[in-house]
Amino acid sequence: MTTQEMMKEYQDWIFKMSSYQMALSIIGIDKMTVAPVNGSAYRDERTAFLAGEMFSIETDPKMVEIVKQLKDDPEVDDDTRRAAAVYYENAVKTLCIPKDEFVAFQQLANESYDKWLEAKNKADYAVFEPYLKKVIEARKKMISDRNSDRSIYDEMLNDFEPNMNQEKYDTFFNALKERLVPLIKKVTEAKQIDNSFLFQDYDIEGQKKFMDHLLQYLHFDPEWGYQNETEHPFTSWTCENDCRTTTKYLKNNVVSAILSTVHEVGHAYYEHNIDPKYDGMILSDGVSSGMHESQSRFCENYLGRTRAFWEYNYPFLQKQFPQQLGRIDLDTFVNALNVGVPSLIRTEADELTYPMHILIRYEIEKGLFNGTISTDGLDTVWADMYEKYLGVRPSNAKEGILQDVHWSDGSFGYFPTYALGSAFAAQFMYAMRKDMDVEDALRNNRYTDCISWLKEHIQKYGFRYEADEIMKMATGEEFNVNYYLDYLEDKYTMLYHL
Amino acid sequence: MTTQEMMKEYQDWIFKMSSYQMALSIIGIDKMTVAPVNGSAYRDERTAFLAGEMFSIETDPKMVEIVKQLKDDPEVDDDTRRAAAVYYENAVKTLCIPKDEFVAFQQLANESYDKWLEAKNKADYAVFEPYLKKVIEARKKMISDRNSDRSIYDEMLNDFEPNMNQEKYDTFFNALKERLVPLIKKVTEAKQIDNSFLFQDYDIEGQKKFMDHLLQYLHFDPEWGYQNETEHPFTSWTCENDCRTTTKYLKNNVVSAILSTVHEVGHAYYEHNIDPKYDGMILSDGVSSGMHESQSRFCENYLGRTRAFWEYNYPFLQKQFPQQLGRIDLDTFVNALNVGVPSLIRTEADELTYPMHILIRYEIEKGLFNGTISTDGLDTVWADMYEKYLGVRPSNAKEGILQDVHWSDGSFGYFPTYALGSAFAAQFMYAMRKDMDVEDALRNNRYTDCISWLKEHIQKYGFRYEADEIMKMATGEEFNVNYYLDYLEDKYTMLYHL
Repeated sequence: MTTQEMMKEYQDWIFKMSSYQMALSIIGIDKMTVAPVNGSAYRDERTAFLAGEMFSIETDPKMVEIVKQLKDDPEVDDDTRRAAAVYYENAVKTLCIPKDEFVAFQQLANESYDKWLEAKNKADYAVFEPYLKKVIEARKKMISDRNSDRSIYDEMLNDFEPNMNQEKYDTFFNALKERLVPLIKKVTEAKQIDNSFLFQDYDIEGQKKFMDHLLQYLHFDPEWGYQNETEHPFTSWTCENDCRTTTKYLKNNVVSAILSTVHEVGHAYYEHNIDPKYDGMILSDGVSSGMHESQSRFCENYLGRTRAFWEYNYPFLQKQFPQQLGRIDLDTFVNALNVGVPSLIRTEADELTYPMHILIRYEIEKGLFNGTISTDGLDTVWADMYEKYLGVRPSNAKEGILQDVHWSDGSFGYFPTYALGSAFAAQFMYAMRKDMDVEDALRNNRYTDCISWLKEHIQKYGFRYEADEIMKMATGEEFNVNYYLDYLEDKYTMLYHL
Repeated sequence: MTTQEMMKEYQDWIFKMSSYQMALSIIGIDKMTVAPVNGSAYRDERTAFLAGEMFSIETDPKMVEIVKQLKDDPEVDDDTRRAAAVYYENAVKTLCIPKDEFVAFQQLANESYDKWLEAKNKADYAVFEPYLKKVIEARKKMISDRNSDRSIYDEMLNDFEPNMNQEKYDTFFNALKERLVPLIKKVTEAKQIDNSFLFQDYDIEGQKKFMDHLLQYLHFDPEWGYQNETEHPFTSWTCENDCRTTTKYLKNNVVSAILSTVHEVGHAYYEHNIDPKYDGMILSDGVSSGMHESQSRFCENYLGRTRAFWEYNYPFLQKQFPQQLGRIDLDTFVNALNVGVPSLIRTEADELTYPMHILIRYEIEKGLFNGTISTDGLDTVWADMYEKYLGVRPSNAKEGILQDVHWSDGSFGYFPTYALGSAFAAQFMYAMRKDMDVEDALRNNRYTDCISWLKEHIQKYGFRYEADEIMKMATGEEFNVNYYLDYLEDKYTMLYHL
């Protein structure tokens, strides 16, 4: 086949895949937001069939051979070579799994998810433990089929964050441990900041009216974005002009929906700002989980929790809730948004203690796959670690090891990217500050000036370059965890008068 | 191939088709309700591709041969024989269209829809006219490929309402013209009923609160149904446990969203009540557009506009809008709901003048396909007809020819079924009254008693029998337009003291 013939086949193939992907994405959003529950059996069965069609297209041997050749074909443009390489790598990873094993694992993951949910509701780790064990064994088998030189856990880390491994993560988390454990201790012992006024009764209609204002401030434009409500907020997309977020309103928490929206819209901007020439290609996607999380956390923490952000927005919130916030001044409000208090639930953790929640999960995952930790008694191991690193101890498995869904379907290696993303974001902020007056933009209703910087330096590239290449292009140097640790130390030293 | 082998192939085939149908249905709902507009080009292109995949499956020569045999195979059960016959008829109709032409038409229909929307917003027919012309030409080509003995417009009429044609519709509409034109004239000249209080300022939040009550009264259960908002209300479904409706709230009209909801939920009930044994099969669908419309109009007009319906519901509405309705008594309210006043917008038309709106569209469609009317200057033709039949003239294309979505995607032959459905409904009501006390059910919060009658006599059959067979089973006689005309004459003679 000539290069031209291969390119024609390739273009048809990616268009075809992107069509199924779009359908599955929209069916997924629909399911999570509005689809009537009694129809789910009918829909799920057919969705699985369509996913199977997609799988068959993705692993079509003829196409795998074509992308294998295109990735090294000198006649092909750089973008396509890069895309072909990524497609090829993904296909090879999937192809090594016998289809029976793949199907059996899907089945196991579904059962394990159900058991996890049951266990969580009963706060009984024993219900979930046998499934966790089976899921780990199955994942070990699937990964070892790859015959890679890397260890199994390194392979999994690499799946979510290419080029990362235990050695690099160890260095990263050791740095965090070294500087954050003493910092958290000092903050815990300092005079505490009252934030109880954030947890009064805030009627949801009022929160929604403020949300209308906030989405305008964020320029989350209805022409390319849409926000809905779900139990667990997420972001989903079909192309750069179709990015959907969800949020959840809590009656007794005025900031939860706000910060989760700023976070999810951060994810949405990443997809929106990728160069449209990659549309429908694999390059039209965030390059790694860590990089995606860096964009959402940048928006949530480095913009959304700042005084400058609220200088503009707080009067609108006060006007919406005069009874609750009328007598709370701006500084009191912003300080309350930023308290650092060790707690048990990761998704409700503050900016300071959040990475410790991730550290604990990383150490456990490492132990599980390297054989130093077993699933037996893991709930106690978990509780001990929370006591050691955060000084708090879960009273049951629901607020302990059963709180997260991720392990139930075998997504090991994903958690570490959450902490990495926060650290990436600090370095991006340092670089951004050299180019522009961030506070001036935020306080003067020019939020998108910050987004434009992210677009120009990070987001537009999509999957075109590796995360570490983008880091270097955007900030002029390699990833350096000290930007993150300096930022946290400065911020919390000042906030708590340490 | 043995019957058993054919049945196995057939089952796999209908499952496959129902999967694509589900995907296309959900993508369609998503597009009409929440999908960001700027993503539509990307989505439409891929939706057209998936529709093409569906088309290929539907017209797979091997399967067409199998259904051709199954439809007459004595070893096969009656339900499957009927389904196979319907599949075969549809396949034969589509087989004559080359796939490229089919996909190109899907693409054109999507573009044309977007242009219609733009034109409507600008009230500028010139924006839409070239697309309308293209859509008509494309439809003519598609239908003429069938090489049928029937005229093109007869083919289209038959697609929406099997066994109907211009000759029968002419008879039907002539009967309407003969008795309704003079009746409308008398009503217009009679002492008018004041309904201005319905068009005060009714805040949309309040309307939504009443809607929560109404959906409960209708038993439109969130477990199998969901209501969203769109510019143009519609109903869509994937299976009997997943039926979606939409509505539109108008600030200056308290009944528009209410009656459109009763109407759309009527459609939803039809799909919900079809025997689940037909799920995923072609039999799990309303048998014809006219029959579908009969169910929605039955709910809207023969239930939703009655005094008994409002005996139960009016106190809730009054409570929601005490300032606007507190001093309006039930009879005044119900009379206002039923005024007959010629107007410009079909979807807001009253029960008496509504069929005239349809008559106008029928005459235009007939002219467009028989060559006596062209798309050039059609906005003026439209305006002239409104003046002739209803004595009102649109001042722009938005309140004239651009008001309806139907022609944008080539759904010619559909409108006439709206009038037919209203007429069917009158005959059903006559039959229902023999079996039960309709008013007693409505005023005592037993709306679903009426729905159960419809289910038992009409809805459960889905596509299992032809519309005329169902009419005969449900009412004991053939369709007779006089039930409808008698009903309208009696109702409006009484209301206006003619």
